[in-house]
Amino acid sequence: MTPQRVSLITLGVEDLARSRAFYEALGWQAADQAPGVVFFRLHGMALGLFGKDDLAKDQGRPGAPLGIGAVTLAQNFQDRDGVDAAYQAAIDAGATELKRPEEVFWGGYSGYYSDPDGHVWELAYNPFWTVNDDGTLTIPDPQRE
Amino acid sequence: MTPQRVSLITLGVEDLARSRAFYEALGWQAADQAPGVVFFRLHGMALGLFGKDDLAKDQGRPGAPLGIGAVTLAQNFQDRDGVDAAYQAAIDAGATELKRPEEVFWGGYSGYYSDPDGHVWELAYNPFWTVNDDGTLTIPDPQRE
Repeated sequence: MTPQRVSLITLGVEDLARSRAFYEALGWQAADQAPGVVFFRLHGMALGLFGKDDLAKDQGRPGAPLGIGAVTLAQNFQDRDGVDAAYQAAIDAGATELKRPEEVFWGGYSGYYSDPDGHVWELAYNPFWTVNDDGTLTIPDPQRE
Repeated sequence: MTPQRVSLITLGVEDLARSRAFYEALGWQAADQAPGVVFFRLHGMALGLFGKDDLAKDQGRPGAPLGIGAVTLAQNFQDRDGVDAAYQAAIDAGATELKRPEEVFWGGYSGYYSDPDGHVWELAYNPFWTVNDDGTLTIPDPQRE
């Protein structure tokens, strides 16, 4: 059995300085320093930036082209205004707009942008899930009738 | 400013039933049910499985091919034995081996496998980071001399 957890999300990037500057422009602060990699603390986990070539090598397939797009990282908010404000902040930081925030079919409100390498971020308000005041997410048990 | 958090990691998949079976074979338990999507609770966040075509549409680019590989999701462990046991469990569940766990240049111990769609997981022991007993990760401040 493997534990039901994620400790670290690593994004492969073309230009570490460019990517770090982008996430810092979002207001994020880097933590641990190591050569060739940048880490940001999240809640009980971390997000890392790492050169794409180095990542391919680390994955045991040096030189392999690594694709981007089929993983979305979402930030959830307590309301629509939070989504709108963060979306504008990301665009101001140089993000590429994919879909401006809008009401979506599942009953929430969501927009998408991509970072300098095309990594996809969703900003969402989901009325069925709880974003706690510390920023963590709680998925409530389904209401049984 | 955007908050320094990730609420949800969504993996675009070809076959939802196949992917769900794979993660359940790892010992994971699905939470919230909604048509066409499967969610697993993590610590204060969630991981979701969602059809790749649906994901492209949701991202505001229907029909676009989404690439895989440049995002690594890591599970950290308190020791090397934890890495080895989880790696074997993943292979037994049908994962594709990318790199068997081994000592790595940064002073840790790490292996990689991919899930049925090629999504990349790293299993690692990092002697410089703390995996707490509840499974959360703490990046300590650097030791200053």
